[in-house]
Amino acid sequence: MILAVLHPGEMGISVAAAAISSGHRVLWVSEGRSLETNRRAALQNLEDVGTLSAIHRSDMIFSICPPQAAIQMAKAVAETGFKGLYVDANAGSPEKKLLINDLLKDKNIDFVDGGIIGPPANSEGSTRLYVSGGRCREIEAVFTNGFLGVHSLEGGIGKAAALKIAYAAWTKGSSALILAVRAMARNAGVEEDLLYEWGLSQPNAEAMTSLSATLNSPKAWRFVSEMNEISETFATNGVPNNFWDAAAEVYDRLKDFKNIPNDQVNVDSVIQKLIETNEDI
Amino acid sequence: MILAVLHPGEMGISVAAAAISSGHRVLWVSEGRSLETNRRAALQNLEDVGTLSAIHRSDMIFSICPPQAAIQMAKAVAETGFKGLYVDANAGSPEKKLLINDLLKDKNIDFVDGGIIGPPANSEGSTRLYVSGGRCREIEAVFTNGFLGVHSLEGGIGKAAALKIAYAAWTKGSSALILAVRAMARNAGVEEDLLYEWGLSQPNAEAMTSLSATLNSPKAWRFVSEMNEISETFATNGVPNNFWDAAAEVYDRLKDFKNIPNDQVNVDSVIQKLIETNEDI
Repeated sequence: MILAVLHPGEMGISVAAAAISSGHRVLWVSEGRSLETNRRAALQNLEDVGTLSAIHRSDMIFSICPPQAAIQMAKAVAETGFKGLYVDANAGSPEKKLLINDLLKDKNIDFVDGGIIGPPANSEGSTRLYVSGGRCREIEAVFTNGFLGVHSLEGGIGKAAALKIAYAAWTKGSSALILAVRAMARNAGVEEDLLYEWGLSQPNAEAMTSLSATLNSPKAWRFVSEMNEISETFATNGVPNNFWDAAAEVYDRLKDFKNIPNDQVNVDSVIQKLIETNEDI
Repeated sequence: MILAVLHPGEMGISVAAAAISSGHRVLWVSEGRSLETNRRAALQNLEDVGTLSAIHRSDMIFSICPPQAAIQMAKAVAETGFKGLYVDANAGSPEKKLLINDLLKDKNIDFVDGGIIGPPANSEGSTRLYVSGGRCREIEAVFTNGFLGVHSLEGGIGKAAALKIAYAAWTKGSSALILAVRAMARNAGVEEDLLYEWGLSQPNAEAMTSLSATLNSPKAWRFVSEMNEISETFATNGVPNNFWDAAAEVYDRLKDFKNIPNDQVNVDSVIQKLIETNEDI
């Protein structure tokens, strides 16, 4: 089969690699992409079709992009004359997935909702693509080899999105919460006392703040819109949702750490950044 | 020394027991207290002085009550002519502790801020009383024996409160958050899928929801005001605070589980209770 991945970032390229190792061809669109994305695609033998207009040749398209670009991407693909199966694997709400489904249906494009859980699929068992919607089992059949596990969910469009939302709500929500706790303790002058008590009774907590600061701060800029979608989805489901408004605020305050290498993130400056000083107001 | 504990609930009685095993006498006030509290006090050989007016005979008073009753308690004690050391060990904000300090100062009563971390002090190393404020080292000197660890904090009134707030912000905030996550997954029809994925990549998460439901739901009714104080304290410190508004909402929805024995709490009905149905609105 001929697949396409829009766009091969770190996650996308790992999905492409799994497809190629399963015996498929994978197209990509170099127009407007960075030098780094070009290198990544070349390294994994993806085939560059140049511009989006040439993407209609593929049987399946995987959209793997920042969630705020997902609808625009679907619209752009719909304009190319593509008639295959479109998989949106972005961290969007069930409502957004239904919206994408509707706009593709108007162009007779079949849609599958996808949600990826885990880091880029570079080792056995690390990463799963959950899929839902009418033709979702076809995605399972694509990935016969490689590091991406694919699981179909019953219940149609929106289920994969809901699962991804619930999963990220805990991992990214609790990371933001514990960073806020350490920041408050610092501002109140009891950070060392908190770390002492955590050492006695919450043995993982200090490490969780360090890991969260190191791993999440460089990605915080793109977590903001994800937290907002999570909050909306919880509200839609009638469950208290302000946790993720606060998490969006935490990640927003960390947006200046964008793309800093993990080993160069200073935990103390992350904590400090979460405290709004009078100068900020 | 002659101490007093207002009132000997499960936590208070364990503090009283530690004081008695350190060689002190402990008074209490039976007026208006339940039969259960009477039994508890008798079992540990506390001395009943009957009414609050007789409490001025003690050298130190420990206030260990629901945080919303803390100011009222301090005011009532101030009216008795008590001139000893007053320790408020309730989970209140630093601002509230400063308020209590002010109102006691008007009556020439010295004040120490206290924060208890851990379950009732019934086993070695389980529980610590953090204290701050001018005479806080005197509290350390009281507890030479028994199961309550006492730690003085530098920095004056408000530090023990801030530490307790930060600590509970993580434990009770994250418990509320993960319960909300499971409730949303249930309402969206992906609860089993979430438990499956958690089993693969978040091995403690499912157990955390069960434990949180079982242990916290019976106490949820009194967590609501604690979450509100936590939220205010985070706001005062310039740190995102909506996490604890949401946690207050979670615990408020669980208030009907008040004082149900832990082994009779049904996890499924706790989760269900967090979903607001159209009938609730």
